[in-house]
Amino acid sequence: MNVEFINPFLSSLLKVLATMADTKLVPGTPSIKNGDVALGDVSGMIGMIGPQTKGSMSITFDEALALDIMQRMLGERPAKINDEVTDMVGEITNMVTGGAKNLLGDKGYEFDMATPVVVTGKGHHLSHKCQGKTLLMPFSSPAGKAHIEVSFDTL
Amino acid sequence: MNVEFINPFLSSLLKVLATMADTKLVPGTPSIKNGDVALGDVSGMIGMIGPQTKGSMSITFDEALALDIMQRMLGERPAKINDEVTDMVGEITNMVTGGAKNLLGDKGYEFDMATPVVVTGKGHHLSHKCQGKTLLMPFSSPAGKAHIEVSFDTL
Repeated sequence: MNVEFINPFLSSLLKVLATMADTKLVPGTPSIKNGDVALGDVSGMIGMIGPQTKGSMSITFDEALALDIMQRMLGERPAKINDEVTDMVGEITNMVTGGAKNLLGDKGYEFDMATPVVVTGKGHHLSHKCQGKTLLMPFSSPAGKAHIEVSFDTL
Repeated sequence: MNVEFINPFLSSLLKVLATMADTKLVPGTPSIKNGDVALGDVSGMIGMIGPQTKGSMSITFDEALALDIMQRMLGERPAKINDEVTDMVGEITNMVTGGAKNLLGDKGYEFDMATPVVVTGKGHHLSHKCQGKTLLMPFSSPAGKAHIEVSFDTL
């Protein structure tokens, strides 16, 4: 899988969080995920299907970062991850994937998005079960870490 | 959402586990998931997109049940959930959704499947972020519990 296919997700996440939550994430170095455990506390994930390929994308946040984004977006900071936080993570997942869909569509890679599923649970771990490798993109911020994982079957 | 749309997933899971793993699950009573926490240790989830609707499906297993299915399918019981177990859960997710896709296709509801994502983490919790309600279908067995959650946008 070409890194060209993760950059639209990366730029879309930076833009969504800057616009919606006045939050600046610092991107780290993307890598091929190879058994290394990438842990998080709340993740949004979504399936993608197009004529050329299909795959899945996830965005994982540390709890502290998710709560910080919540506070910046809605003005209130819940004590812990609740339904409002998972709704927000689902919305962010939709917006980031929608932005990446537009950018990839411009390059001739069309896909449709399924609906997101949000996982909560301290230190959970995701495995994208594609034929292709999973690209892992870490982000850091003062409030905590985030990462995106993207995997497509045939890219 | 009509229960007609969860029955194909139910029957497909029973068939896949009986055929592949000689495992008999006892279905409980389906319900609309409404904030009740349905916890599990390993879950496979997948996105679905069709001309009439889109949505997501998940299958969640207790760790003990997942390890028992692994032993019955491959003859070896890992000490804990590892990559082979998550591969197996991803495969079961594909097979169950593929079976349901065929059954729903016969009723005129066509959809394509994305690729599965498998979550591990003690007592994690899933939220399907659809416009529609989430149908929850519990299963029991001597080795542990499982449940399916299905949500579609417009059914």
